[in-house]
Amino acid sequence: MARAAVVGAGMTKFGVHDKPLQELFAEAALTALEDAGVAPPEIEAFYFGNAMGGQTENDTHLGPKLATHVGMAGIPVQRFEDACATSSNAFKNAVEAVEGGHHDVVLVGGVERCTPKTGKDTAEMTRIFGSASHRQYEQPTGLTFPGVFALFTKRHMHEHGTTERHLAEVAVKNHGNGSLNEKAHFGKSTSVEEVLDSPVVADPFRLMDCCPFSDGASAVVVVSDDLADSYDAAVDVAGVGHGTDIVPLADKETPHVTIAARNAASEAYEQADTTADAIDFAEVHDCFTGAEVLASEALGLVADGEGGPAAADGTTARDGEIPINASGGLKAKGHPIGATGTGQIVELTQQIRGDAGTHQLDGVERGAAHNLGGDAATTIVTVMEGR
Amino acid sequence: MARAAVVGAGMTKFGVHDKPLQELFAEAALTALEDAGVAPPEIEAFYFGNAMGGQTENDTHLGPKLATHVGMAGIPVQRFEDACATSSNAFKNAVEAVEGGHHDVVLVGGVERCTPKTGKDTAEMTRIFGSASHRQYEQPTGLTFPGVFALFTKRHMHEHGTTERHLAEVAVKNHGNGSLNEKAHFGKSTSVEEVLDSPVVADPFRLMDCCPFSDGASAVVVVSDDLADSYDAAVDVAGVGHGTDIVPLADKETPHVTIAARNAASEAYEQADTTADAIDFAEVHDCFTGAEVLASEALGLVADGEGGPAAADGTTARDGEIPINASGGLKAKGHPIGATGTGQIVELTQQIRGDAGTHQLDGVERGAAHNLGGDAATTIVTVMEGR
Repeated sequence: MARAAVVGAGMTKFGVHDKPLQELFAEAALTALEDAGVAPPEIEAFYFGNAMGGQTENDTHLGPKLATHVGMAGIPVQRFEDACATSSNAFKNAVEAVEGGHHDVVLVGGVERCTPKTGKDTAEMTRIFGSASHRQYEQPTGLTFPGVFALFTKRHMHEHGTTERHLAEVAVKNHGNGSLNEKAHFGKSTSVEEVLDSPVVADPFRLMDCCPFSDGASAVVVVSDDLADSYDAAVDVAGVGHGTDIVPLADKETPHVTIAARNAASEAYEQADTTADAIDFAEVHDCFTGAEVLASEALGLVADGEGGPAAADGTTARDGEIPINASGGLKAKGHPIGATGTGQIVELTQQIRGDAGTHQLDGVERGAAHNLGGDAATTIVTVMEGR
Repeated sequence: MARAAVVGAGMTKFGVHDKPLQELFAEAALTALEDAGVAPPEIEAFYFGNAMGGQTENDTHLGPKLATHVGMAGIPVQRFEDACATSSNAFKNAVEAVEGGHHDVVLVGGVERCTPKTGKDTAEMTRIFGSASHRQYEQPTGLTFPGVFALFTKRHMHEHGTTERHLAEVAVKNHGNGSLNEKAHFGKSTSVEEVLDSPVVADPFRLMDCCPFSDGASAVVVVSDDLADSYDAAVDVAGVGHGTDIVPLADKETPHVTIAARNAASEAYEQADTTADAIDFAEVHDCFTGAEVLASEALGLVADGEGGPAAADGTTARDGEIPINASGGLKAKGHPIGATGTGQIVELTQQIRGDAGTHQLDGVERGAAHNLGGDAATTIVTVMEGR
């Protein structure tokens, strides 16, 4: 028995958009509803993720505004914010709500605008993103997220011999994958040389190790297991694990081990009665190339210490042993913060259905999504599988 | 059978504080935990409310930060933002989580700093609060929340003959109540003359019709019905209703009727198998005096059209037929946005236990809390009763 099922999925292209938040969200939400064959008035509750609309465009209490805009005014709505894990947390709570019998058919989605279309430039956006790091112990030092993940990654390099070339190979793989995905922010491939020649942002990361700030929206229709068979193309939510970790990062015992992700993965696999070995493909939170290395190990998709060479040796390629970020990942598909988590759920749904178009993987039945927030202090891991 | 039970409650004084968010929250949370006789590691999940920390002090992803600070790092945490209804929505989701069997013992709480201690002055805070109104149709017109609730109230005056003196009597009552509550922001009484002589903010509201911007925190420990009897002083959560309404307010058919509150109250009463007549006392969201008038009617505590004179004629006094805002309400107890909702739950818990000290009501067994957000576009109504 599944915990819940996804019966509709939709997303905008991730990238640079002129549309205001509600229009962007409506595009994803109405696509998901149409895909499910569900009309807006049939939705019983809305679980919504937006990380920074207050800071970027003075827009809060967005739940009822967006519900109104897509024709669902009146239903219970809740907005979640958990940094970059925002809409995965909305998804987790939605799964629990249908599993607990509180609702049968709900909409989950997220939206964010992070490009200069909001009127904020990259420096301002970097400060706003930095609000997720510790206010007293990290922000005053000038530590922003490239630096946070650089620290994690430097430790991994020290422990396991991971190299800048290993990291560059992650970027090359994910850009290659993104070039096949029409919804990706970046449609271009890159090379190890181009990555290693790009300017240093936070050692060991160069510009091409970093994901972009994107605009975008994503949404899924989630129903209870009991109802799933009455929809055309349900995909089961077999497990959703949720771990958190200490903030600030200086207090973490072993930063590169990302305990929250390990706990979340372990919980998700247990719920799904599966193991890492039985996962056919994964979407992981590669906000920086090094983050993919850590996530691949934390989820047990590769052994500890083997995350570094995994892209270079083809293990995580589209046709490799365990394809990781076939969508392009945050690195190439893009990272519209509040839309990233449910964006991964859209990807899992479409790949398992065999409905991922030009970037469809062969024969995938079970996938995992890994979405983290802040100093790797929130992580949600979801396992989905064919029904 | 109750939906859940509150077994511990704590709050800071609402007012002006020098402490940073995590210290303020810890004071409330550790009081609630001690009251429940629960140690931090026994808490299984944390449902957290903060409305504006990103905008006011560049502090987001606060859930894991606060969990770390009070000794609960590692557990699932989710932050909610639903404007002024923020922590009531956290509470609703927590009740559903324990009712659905996902957790047995959880912490719910909220914190906010809204005074110039954040570095933001009143004009800046008014703009930030305004982020909850419609970004395209309301904010550009200069409509901030005194204006929003003035529009609702003007319509009520037109329909029912409510007067400015009626509104002033609400302020007088709530300030009188607040003067008995050591946790209240304002410890002073006022008079009808003082209210009517205060400067106009947004017709018909004068300064003394408006609640303050406050700093503060509140928290409660929520457990499943099955476990409640193993705690010393459990109070049942009999019903939690959640309604939303259209945004912008210009699209509402009958603005002064506040449909979201009526739907939320009806849902909460039905869950609790009770009626408005059986409610002994209520805390309602009196961000402005007129808002108490609308809420009293929406909850059925007074008949439609009788909300205006209800304070003046003593109906809603401490010793009246239906005491409303015996705590002082938002008007006098204060309004630290993200802490207001769970602050009402703390008040209900303590009154029903007979533990409200200097502002204890006589013989109250069943209470209702009404917490709204934005253009009255989110409303959550909770019914609690003695176990």
